[in-house]
Amino acid sequence: MNFLSDTTAPVHPAVLAALADANDGYAPSYGADPLTHRLKDLLQELFEAEIELVLTTSGTASNALALSVMCPSHGMILCHDEAHIHRDERGAPEFFTGGGKLLPLTGDHAKIDPARLRAALEEWPQDFVHTTPPRAVSISNLNESGCAYDAEALRALTVPAREKGLGIHFDGARFANALVSLKARPAELSWKAGCDVLCLGATKNGAIGAEAIVLFGDLRERLGELQARQKRSGHMGPKIRFIAAQMLAWLTDDLWLDLARQANAAAAEIARLLTVSGGAELVHPVDGNEVFVRLDPALERQLKAGGAGFYGWPDGSARFVASWSTSEAELAALAHAINR
Amino acid sequence: MNFLSDTTAPVHPAVLAALADANDGYAPSYGADPLTHRLKDLLQELFEAEIELVLTTSGTASNALALSVMCPSHGMILCHDEAHIHRDERGAPEFFTGGGKLLPLTGDHAKIDPARLRAALEEWPQDFVHTTPPRAVSISNLNESGCAYDAEALRALTVPAREKGLGIHFDGARFANALVSLKARPAELSWKAGCDVLCLGATKNGAIGAEAIVLFGDLRERLGELQARQKRSGHMGPKIRFIAAQMLAWLTDDLWLDLARQANAAAAEIARLLTVSGGAELVHPVDGNEVFVRLDPALERQLKAGGAGFYGWPDGSARFVASWSTSEAELAALAHAINR
Amino acid sequence: MNFLSDTTAPVHPAVLAALADANDGYAPSYGADPLTHRLKDLLQELFEAEIELVLTTSGTASNALALSVMCPSHGMILCHDEAHIHRDERGAPEFFTGGGKLLPLTGDHAKIDPARLRAALEEWPQDFVHTTPPRAVSISNLNESGCAYDAEALRALTVPAREKGLGIHFDGARFANALVSLKARPAELSWKAGCDVLCLGATKNGAIGAEAIVLFGDLRERLGELQARQKRSGHMGPKIRFIAAQMLAWLTDDLWLDLARQANAAAAEIARLLTVSGGAELVHPVDGNEVFVRLDPALERQLKAGGAGFYGWPDGSARFVASWSTSEAELAALAHAINR
Amino acid sequence: MNFLSDTTAPVHPAVLAALADANDGYAPSYGADPLTHRLKDLLQELFEAEIELVLTTSGTASNALALSVMCPSHGMILCHDEAHIHRDERGAPEFFTGGGKLLPLTGDHAKIDPARLRAALEEWPQDFVHTTPPRAVSISNLNESGCAYDAEALRALTVPAREKGLGIHFDGARFANALVSLKARPAELSWKAGCDVLCLGATKNGAIGAEAIVLFGDLRERLGELQARQKRSGHMGPKIRFIAAQMLAWLTDDLWLDLARQANAAAAEIARLLTVSGGAELVHPVDGNEVFVRLDPALERQLKAGGAGFYGWPDGSARFVASWSTSEAELAALAHAINR
Repeated sequence: MNFLSDTTAPVHPAVLAALADANDGYAPSYGADPLTHRLKDLLQELFEAEIELVLTTSGTASNALALSVMCPSHGMILCHDEAHIHRDERGAPEFFTGGGKLLPLTGDHAKIDPARLRAALEEWPQDFVHTTPPRAVSISNLNESGCAYDAEALRALTVPAREKGLGIHFDGARFANALVSLKARPAELSWKAGCDVLCLGATKNGAIGAEAIVLFGDLRERLGELQARQKRSGHMGPKIRFIAAQMLAWLTDDLWLDLARQANAAAAEIARLLTVSGGAELVHPVDGNEVFVRLDPALERQLKAGGAGFYGWPDGSARFVASWSTSEAELAALAHAINR
Repeated sequence: MNFLSDTTAPVHPAVLAALADANDGYAPSYGADPLTHRLKDLLQELFEAEIELVLTTSGTASNALALSVMCPSHGMILCHDEAHIHRDERGAPEFFTGGGKLLPLTGDHAKIDPARLRAALEEWPQDFVHTTPPRAVSISNLNESGCAYDAEALRALTVPAREKGLGIHFDGARFANALVSLKARPAELSWKAGCDVLCLGATKNGAIGAEAIVLFGDLRERLGELQARQKRSGHMGPKIRFIAAQMLAWLTDDLWLDLARQANAAAAEIARLLTVSGGAELVHPVDGNEVFVRLDPALERQLKAGGAGFYGWPDGSARFVASWSTSEAELAALAHAINR
Repeated sequence: MNFLSDTTAPVHPAVLAALADANDGYAPSYGADPLTHRLKDLLQELFEAEIELVLTTSGTASNALALSVMCPSHGMILCHDEAHIHRDERGAPEFFTGGGKLLPLTGDHAKIDPARLRAALEEWPQDFVHTTPPRAVSISNLNESGCAYDAEALRALTVPAREKGLGIHFDGARFANALVSLKARPAELSWKAGCDVLCLGATKNGAIGAEAIVLFGDLRERLGELQARQKRSGHMGPKIRFIAAQMLAWLTDDLWLDLARQANAAAAEIARLLTVSGGAELVHPVDGNEVFVRLDPALERQLKAGGAGFYGWPDGSARFVASWSTSEAELAALAHAINR
Repeated sequence: MNFLSDTTAPVHPAVLAALADANDGYAPSYGADPLTHRLKDLLQELFEAEIELVLTTSGTASNALALSVMCPSHGMILCHDEAHIHRDERGAPEFFTGGGKLLPLTGDHAKIDPARLRAALEEWPQDFVHTTPPRAVSISNLNESGCAYDAEALRALTVPAREKGLGIHFDGARFANALVSLKARPAELSWKAGCDVLCLGATKNGAIGAEAIVLFGDLRERLGELQARQKRSGHMGPKIRFIAAQMLAWLTDDLWLDLARQANAAAAEIARLLTVSGGAELVHPVDGNEVFVRLDPALERQLKAGGAGFYGWPDGSARFVASWSTSEAELAALAHAINR
C-alpha cells in the first residue's frame, strides 16, 4: 500500500521495452536521432499544432528551462502559492532565469484566483523601473491540490496575462490526469487555452525520466535560446534517443491516457473508501490521482498500523497519491485497514 | 564504420537488463533507494576510500555541479584551453557557479603544463580584492586529446594547486579508459593523486546516461550543498534508482574496465591502420579510445568515399573515436577503405 | 511644497563642505584612506561595538550586498510584503545572491507579524533538500509605512530567526529617524536587538550618496567576501574618501540625529495639519518622517491646486515625506492650501 | 611624487564647485533632473550623434552594465588578455551578464591583434549549441598599457566583429587621454569607428566618481533594459543630479581635454626623464598618461629612496601614472631622484 507519490511507482513495461528497441546500433546524439523526429511528429498530431520540442529527464528542469526563455533576470513569474515551482524545486526558476522573482498568489484548491491575478498585474506594472515586472505566469494542471482547470478557467487567467504581454507556462507534470478527468483534447487544455509552453511529464505516469518542453506559436522562435540553456544547464544529454523512445511508447496507442485513467480511478476509489468510513473529509475535489483528506486521529492510527504509506501535508491534511500501478490488491488492503 | 563519438554508440546489454531488474515495485525517490546505497558501497570498495555520492544523467551537469561547490561566484577555475568544460559545455561552469571565471591554460596534447599552472597561481593571487582568485583546477583524464596523465603527472599539478588552497576536480568522462591504459587502480588516479572530486562517467562507455560525482576527503562535508544545487538545477530526478542500476551493472565484475579495454584496443588498431598506410600522422599519443591524425587529402577522400564516419577537428586534424561497440567488422571495413 | 520623497531634498551644507576638505592632495584608493579609518573609529564609538565597514553610494546596493553574504543562491530571505527590497529594488537581492528567493510576510503597518515569521520558519524547514531554506530575515527600521520597531519588537523577530540559524539584516535607510523617534541608542536598535548587519543610510537625510554596511559580531568575518562582492558589483569606487567624508560630517556632533529630528517634527506637523482639517485620516502611526493618509477627494484636489507635491500610494492612500530641509515656509504653505 | 594611479589624485576644483551649484533646492530623483538632461544634450553635441545616456559612479559598473545588454548569459565577450574587465574587475562582466564568458586574446602592447580576433571568431562559431558564441568585443582606448588605437586600428577590430553580429564596447576610462593624444574628435574614436556603447570615464581625470554609459545607434533601443539592470545592480542612486553636475563641469569649455593634455604631457616628461637617465627602457609606447618601463635595479632603489610612488607590474616592469594634478614640483622631484 504505497500512496506516497507517483514518483515511487515502477516504470511501465512498454516504456522499458522501448528502450531495448531503441538500442539498435549507432545513432546521432543530442536530439538529431530518428526517434526524436518521430516524437515531434506524433506530438504535432496529438496537439493539432506546429510545435518545437526539447526533451529532458526532469520536470524541475523542464519548468525552469521553459520559464527562462520567457522571463528575463529582471522579470517576475506569477504562480500559485502552492505551486511546485515555488514550493518544491529549491529555487530552480530563480536559478535558470538568473535571479528572476516568483510572486506567489492565493486562490482556493491551489487554483490561482483570477481576481488576485488581475490585481497583481495592476500592482506590479510593466514599465516602472523600480519594480520587477511580471513577464510570465505559471499554471499547474493537474495542480498541486489534485484539481483540474478546465479550458474556461484557464482562459480566465491567460487572457488578462497575455494582455499585459506575459508568457504563459503550463506545468503539465500530471497533464494526462487533467486531460482524462476533463475528457478534453490536448489542444483544448494547451494552446487553445492560451498556453505558450507546456511541460508535459511522463515521469509520474509510467516513464523512467521523460519530460517534453513543447513550444507553441511564436514561442517556437525561442528554440535556439532554449537549446543553448538546455546545453548550459547540463540537460542536453548525448543519448536523447532514449528519452524520445520512452515518450513515444508512452504516447502510442493512448497509453498515457489509459495509465492516467487507471490512476484517477484508483484515486477516486481511495477517496470513496476514506470518506465513507466517516473518519476522513476531503480537503479538495479529487479531479485526478491525488487525494487530500483531513483524517480523524483514530483512522490515521489505524491506517498506519495497517501499513498504508502516505504523507502528512503542511496544512495538517494527509495526501494519498495513486499511480498507474496502484493495484486492486492495494485498494483492497486499504479497505481492510479502514474497516478493521 | 561510425567513429564520430563514443556517445553515438549503443548501450551495453547488461546495463539495459539492469533497468528491468530495478523495475521491481515501489522504491523511494531521490536517491534513498537500496540500489543507490549498494552503488555507494561498491564505489567505496573500488576506490578504497570513504566517499559521498551524487548521481546525474549528464557529464556536463556533473562537472558543473562539482565545480560549483569548490569555486564561489567570485572565484576562478583553472583548466586546459582544450578542456571540455571550457570548449564544449556552453558555459555550464560559469552558470552553475553563478558567474565564476575559467582561465584556459596551455600545454602539449591537452595536458596542462605544470609551469604554466604555477605561473597562473602567481599571476592571480588569492588575496587581492581586484582580481579573481583561482579556487579550483579541473583536469580531464583521459583528456580531450585522448591522452592520459599518470599519477606523477597529476601530482605535478595538484600539489601546487592544493598549496594555494584550490579544490581539485577530475573530469573522468573517460576515466576507465585512462585506468586501463595506465594499468592503475582507481585510488591511484583519484584521491591518492590529490583529487577532491571525480566526475566518473559511464555514458560514453556503455550506459544510457549515468554519471557519478564522487566526493573524497574533506569535500564530503559539502554533500548537503551539492544536493541543494543538484535539486535546484533539475538534476535530482525522482527515479534515481534507474541511474544507480546502470552504474552498478557497469561497475560489476569489471565490466567498465573490460569495455574500456575493448575501446582502447580498437583505437590502437585504428591508429595502426591509419599510420601504416603512410597517409596519416598521429597528432597526439593514443592513450585511450581517441585517435587524432593529420590525414593526407587523398586518404581523407578515400575514407569518406568508403563510408567512414569521423569529425574534422578545429586544428585541422581528424578525430576517430572507438567505443566498446566498435566491431571487428568496422575495423576490417576501415582497413578495406584505407587499402583500396 | 515638495513632499514627494526625502531623496529629492538638497544636500546639507556641512556634507558638501566636507567634500572640499577631503580634496586635499593624493589619497589611497578603495578605502585605505585616513578618512575611512576615522569613520570606522567613529562608528565603533557610536555603536559601542567592534565593527567592520563597507561604504557604497546606494542603499539598494548596501542592502543587496549585505544580504548576499548571509543568504546563498539556494537560500531564502524573509521580509515584509511592503519591504523596499521586495517592492522597490527591481530584484537586487535576487541578483546579488545569485538567485535567492524572497518570501514576503504580512503584518500591520509594514511590520512583520512575529506569528507569521514563526509560521514561515516552520513551513520552510532548514534541512529539506526540495524547499528553499530561510537563511536571512530583513527588517526595515524606520519601515516602509513610516513606523518604528522598538527593541522589544525587534527581538520578537530576531530571536526566533536566530534560533533557526538565520542572519539578521536591518535596512536602516531611515535608521536615524527611528533612533530619534524612540529616543534609543544606536546599539539598542542594532546589535543588542539581534542585528548582524545594519545598512545605515545618510542619502535620505542630508548626504549626496553615502551608505555604510556595518557588520557586527561574527559576521565581521565575512568582510573579505563582502569586499569581493562589492568590487565585483562595481560598488568599490576608487575615491571612497569622498563617501567617508560625507558620512563623517553627517555623524559628527549629532548632525544625523538633528536632521532626523527636524524631519520627524516636520512630518508630525504635516500629519497634524492634514488630520485636524477633517479631510484626512492617518493610515499608519507617524513614527518618523513619513505620513500616510487617506484623503477626502475635496482635500486632495485642494492640495494639488495649492501646489503640494506628494505621491498616491498603491493602497489608495497618499504619502507625504518630510526631510531635514522641509521648511517653516513649506509647512505654512501646506496649512494655507488646506485652509483655503 | 605620487605616480601610483590617477585614481589617487584629487578632484578638480571646478567639479567640486559644480556640486555646490547643483545643490539648489529639490530636484527629481533617478535622472529626471534638469542637469542630466543638459548633460545628454551636451554629449550629443560633442559626439555629433543622437545618444542615450546612463550615469554611474563607477567604471567597473559602467563596463559591466554596458556589456550585459549586449552579451546574454550564454554568450562570450572577446577582450585583450590585459583588459581591465578581465584582470581588474573581480569578474564584474561575468556577474552582470549572469555567467557570460570572457575570452582573453593576445596582441602587443595590450592591443588586440586583429588576426587573433578573426581567428577567435572562426574558432567559436555563432550557431553551434555546444560552444559559447562571441556576442561582444571590448576594446580599451586608452588601453591598459597606455597605448591608443587610432580610428583605423579600431575598425580593423570592429568591422570583422560586426560582421559576425557582435556588439562593440569601448572602455573609455581614459578616453580623453586617447582623444588628445590622437588629436581626434569624439565621434571619430567612437561611433564612426564602430562603437555601440562607450563607457566614458571622468573619475580618473578630475571627478569624484562620474561615468557615462553612452549608447549609439541601434543600441539606444536597449535603454529600458539597461536602466532595469542599473536599478537592479544598485547603480541608480537617487541623487543622480550630482553625477550629472560633475560630468557637465568636466565637459564644459574642454576642461576634460585640457586635463587629459596636462596628464599626457606629464607622462611624456616622466618617460623622458626615466629613459635619458639610461636606467630605464620603455616597455610600451607612451600614448597617454601611463608610462611602463623596465628599470635597472640601481635606478629602482634610487627612485624608492627618493620617495617616488609607483607600482611594480606583474610582467616585471614598473608603471608610472600621471594625472591632471601631477605638478611641476613632482616632475622636478623625480628628476632630482633620478640624478642624485
